[in-house]
Amino acid sequence: MKLLEDKIRSDGKVLPGGILKVDGFLNHQIDVELVSQLGKAFYDHFSLYNITKILTVEASGIALAFAAAQCFHVPVLFAKKGAHKNVGDNVYSSECYSFTKGVSTVIVVSKSYLSAEDNVLIIDDFLANGAATESLMDILGQAGARLAGIGVAIEKGFQPGGQKLRSRGIDLQSLAIIESMTDSQVTFRRDD
Amino acid sequence: MKLLEDKIRSDGKVLPGGILKVDGFLNHQIDVELVSQLGKAFYDHFSLYNITKILTVEASGIALAFAAAQCFHVPVLFAKKGAHKNVGDNVYSSECYSFTKGVSTVIVVSKSYLSAEDNVLIIDDFLANGAATESLMDILGQAGARLAGIGVAIEKGFQPGGQKLRSRGIDLQSLAIIESMTDSQVTFRRDD
Repeated sequence: MKLLEDKIRSDGKVLPGGILKVDGFLNHQIDVELVSQLGKAFYDHFSLYNITKILTVEASGIALAFAAAQCFHVPVLFAKKGAHKNVGDNVYSSECYSFTKGVSTVIVVSKSYLSAEDNVLIIDDFLANGAATESLMDILGQAGARLAGIGVAIEKGFQPGGQKLRSRGIDLQSLAIIESMTDSQVTFRRDD
Repeated sequence: MKLLEDKIRSDGKVLPGGILKVDGFLNHQIDVELVSQLGKAFYDHFSLYNITKILTVEASGIALAFAAAQCFHVPVLFAKKGAHKNVGDNVYSSECYSFTKGVSTVIVVSKSYLSAEDNVLIIDDFLANGAATESLMDILGQAGARLAGIGVAIEKGFQPGGQKLRSRGIDLQSLAIIESMTDSQVTFRRDD
């Protein structure tokens, strides 16, 4: 998606350790017009899938999931990290390793809000190794819910998450796929 | 706001320890139509304030802040909890005690995205003791930014946060103010 690629080129910063900093428009400060457009792009791709719910994980996925859900007219459900008094014990849970933070986290979803009736679109801001996505899929499996597809804003194409998901026949829609990045240049994957 | 009060009455649950569980529509599963309406209600109140940015704290405030920001056409900035590799060291920070979780957390905001030029609307899902709000105001003070006002979805009127803010002349807009709550009944404050 050209709009997002242009924004990454103009406002993104590449940090040591393969980190792409997009905190000026995506996951700290949020460019609301841009993220609303990204949500619409997910709708354009998945609109015929009879999505019943959008699942993401706090915190960076929430705005993007919300923008998409406004188009689908379905609820957003965001997995919480760690134990929460206000979620309770009746939860699906999955362990997830964050490469960015260097720690393992348990993510939880209340059993009240996900069931075998659901046809779920998973949305997140980043896909790199796919750890968060795998945990969300694990939770879908526990609920017996169906995975309709996965939408991510930025896929790091040089890390294995995207390839692993596509090889299993999952409909993964990444709005920008980074082929490679250096301090001075970000190169995106082209379909042609 | 009647829409929100009705939703709290129909779908909210009162738990021991003064916890109001609204995770079916506000802070775990999100009713996107409702939250979009709440965002519009904040705009109706604060539209003439020349807001330049909406500040909230992850994770439960993000959807609400995003919905409001779509009306104001300004960016959302959400404070992050704890240290983050992808925010960096150049941050404003403030310590904040969460009564719900029973722990202190440091919240951080990158200095890149908040300055003395900003006129900020703080938005959050809940106001009880006001700890999170005070921390966000502390961060505004560090940045030299102006506080335009505060919008919260649900104020626990029987806890001191709201009164403390109003007594300082701050324009606090709470869309539902709970006067008291028991297992079987939630009573809202009336203006008349």
